[in-house]
Amino acid sequence: MAGQITVVEGGSVTTPRGFQAGATYAGLKTFAEDKLDLGIIVSEAACSSAGIYTQSSIKSPSVTVTREHINGGSVRAVVVNAGIANCSVGHQGYLDAQEMTALAGKKLGLESNQVAVCSTGVIGVELPMSLIRTGFDQIQIKADGGHELARAMMTTDTRPKEVAVRFEVDGKQAHVGGVTKGSGMIHPNMATMLSFITTDAAVDKDFLDATLREVADSSFNMMTVDGDTSTNDTLLVLSNGQAGNSTINSNSPDAAVFKQALMDVCVHLAREMARDGEGATKLITVEVVGATDVSNARKAARTIASSNLVKSAVAGSDPNWGRIMMAVGRSGAVVEESKIDLFINGVCIMEEGKPVPFHRDAVVALMRGTEITLRLNLNLANGEGTAWGCDLTEEYVIINSAYTT
Amino acid sequence: MAGQITVVEGGSVTTPRGFQAGATYAGLKTFAEDKLDLGIIVSEAACSSAGIYTQSSIKSPSVTVTREHINGGSVRAVVVNAGIANCSVGHQGYLDAQEMTALAGKKLGLESNQVAVCSTGVIGVELPMSLIRTGFDQIQIKADGGHELARAMMTTDTRPKEVAVRFEVDGKQAHVGGVTKGSGMIHPNMATMLSFITTDAAVDKDFLDATLREVADSSFNMMTVDGDTSTNDTLLVLSNGQAGNSTINSNSPDAAVFKQALMDVCVHLAREMARDGEGATKLITVEVVGATDVSNARKAARTIASSNLVKSAVAGSDPNWGRIMMAVGRSGAVVEESKIDLFINGVCIMEEGKPVPFHRDAVVALMRGTEITLRLNLNLANGEGTAWGCDLTEEYVIINSAYTT
Repeated sequence: MAGQITVVEGGSVTTPRGFQAGATYAGLKTFAEDKLDLGIIVSEAACSSAGIYTQSSIKSPSVTVTREHINGGSVRAVVVNAGIANCSVGHQGYLDAQEMTALAGKKLGLESNQVAVCSTGVIGVELPMSLIRTGFDQIQIKADGGHELARAMMTTDTRPKEVAVRFEVDGKQAHVGGVTKGSGMIHPNMATMLSFITTDAAVDKDFLDATLREVADSSFNMMTVDGDTSTNDTLLVLSNGQAGNSTINSNSPDAAVFKQALMDVCVHLAREMARDGEGATKLITVEVVGATDVSNARKAARTIASSNLVKSAVAGSDPNWGRIMMAVGRSGAVVEESKIDLFINGVCIMEEGKPVPFHRDAVVALMRGTEITLRLNLNLANGEGTAWGCDLTEEYVIINSAYTT
Repeated sequence: MAGQITVVEGGSVTTPRGFQAGATYAGLKTFAEDKLDLGIIVSEAACSSAGIYTQSSIKSPSVTVTREHINGGSVRAVVVNAGIANCSVGHQGYLDAQEMTALAGKKLGLESNQVAVCSTGVIGVELPMSLIRTGFDQIQIKADGGHELARAMMTTDTRPKEVAVRFEVDGKQAHVGGVTKGSGMIHPNMATMLSFITTDAAVDKDFLDATLREVADSSFNMMTVDGDTSTNDTLLVLSNGQAGNSTINSNSPDAAVFKQALMDVCVHLAREMARDGEGATKLITVEVVGATDVSNARKAARTIASSNLVKSAVAGSDPNWGRIMMAVGRSGAVVEESKIDLFINGVCIMEEGKPVPFHRDAVVALMRGTEITLRLNLNLANGEGTAWGCDLTEEYVIINSAYTT
């Protein structure tokens, strides 16, 4: 069993020791109320690091450069801009991404290959490097700069999304902090999502990499907003060892508590991204149990959470469970219709594949809340999976029918 | 080259010789203005037939019974009801589907295994068999009953969708007629779609089956409304040979013209379904050329046509081509960013992966029309594919957030 993990009130990526951050308004973001749009996270010590990137065949050069630098093994700072995705602008995008890391490195006294770069925003527009150069000069790096950094990453996000937890490893107090931006273009396989995780626990690079992948499969990759995946998605973790513990690897007694702390942070961020999906008014949690295995459970949960028809029904507080059956049926998961039980916010709606009488008005009232849980028991074996999504509202369409115009 | 194919003005499934149809209001459909909800198509002579069915693991028993009867080889009539899907109601659904075929058979002087049955509507509600029994008595089978039948299939469809074409085989005049209902829950793999095709050309069963599959892959399976797939989807074709031609098989000189006639009918119906998608105001045609092969071209075209972000941008007449790049990037199709050219209604927006200057207001004006064509040249090889979809509007959400309540 993992040890106790406590949420740090007001936590951020600068909660773990030895991480600082800062942000400024460089002039890239014209569409959001909160104008911070250029930020930096930096560790005072060398880091082990790992990353997961968009699987799209069309990638922002910011992703390409970041992958190169993370693979190089020396990254200890991240620079991020919002407003412009630095994608589909030809070779200039690669030059600009490199210059971003060089400029940040110069400011921080680091080599450019010690800096990762992430961009989010409109595709097809070149980064205004002159504004960015001025912006870097303005950034104040601060010990409590995490909150500003969180705001600087936002695009159509309505609020910053960050968290930190505290736990004990090797008799020392350690932390994991995390920040994310999401909102639209969010789907499994790392949607328009930039997420940065910091930890002061010392963690072996290989174990960090493997654990990040495992945790992402249960958190970020189980979250969907609109089925679209972006060109820029990046999830990075930096571990600087400032907690003073002996390095955690897969055989350490502390491996479990570290993994759980990382899971808590990533699940929190995934849920917050789903809840803050474009136009969303409700967080949808889909729990599938009794599947033949975890992969089938996840397939079923994700398909239900991403169905436009299910999402529209939830928007209207409509317990239209037929659509949930439709979605699980087309999910590719192994199911037997006559064994499926379905619960909406704890109320049994269907048993053994057939509707059971339920108090419709009571369920509609439950569905008027802001958290809707759809639970399916497939009653086949023990596979479990949880996915998070949000309702599909008229507001989603309004936001997305007038983004660039 | 196939011979000349002419559209028959006001054509329907009863345009081919020897097919009759009729419909009535049995009381199943409570939500639509057009209340016809129970219909029959029947051939005066024996038919060869073929079918394609939903790939969902949760199927309406109407689909199960129809597949059994089509596989039996004797089907020459189809009964269809709208309003109730006859799905997720336990074993009673199978008994009711069987009774539907028996009741129709009795009325028509046929065995029940000579009748196929299709249902569409709300999931989880039992068919009111007493109303249906009375309904069958009311139906008048007529030589020009195709139009009534088309109305009786509609759910949230705003208009009937039907067509017929005329062509010559073996020196005889022959026809293909078709009718479909669609609207929501529409996606490749046979969405909430019921489509019936009739022909008076004599066609060998094996050739009919193979040709139907090939044509469906270029028509119905390239159409998407909302990414959802239903429990009830069925595409049937009946050939009664009343044109008097010698039976067409894969070696016949007339194979090509028959296949083209079937393609014309199916593409027309697919386009009409996309155009009449729930809440849709625009038909989106996505043409992908220059792909490494047909499969890659289709993957790219379908992914673009089904992207909520692309669909929302089209709703707002917003030439946000970055989203088209995003969608093709995540489609899984082989692409090289620096080779992609993109055209919106004929105007070049992007060349070799980079934006080209275009007159934005002119493109916005073009996009205010009701037919939007997105054309991508991947410039890799000769694979081509076309997909059809529709814009995503606030109206889609309004329709689908209050369907059962």
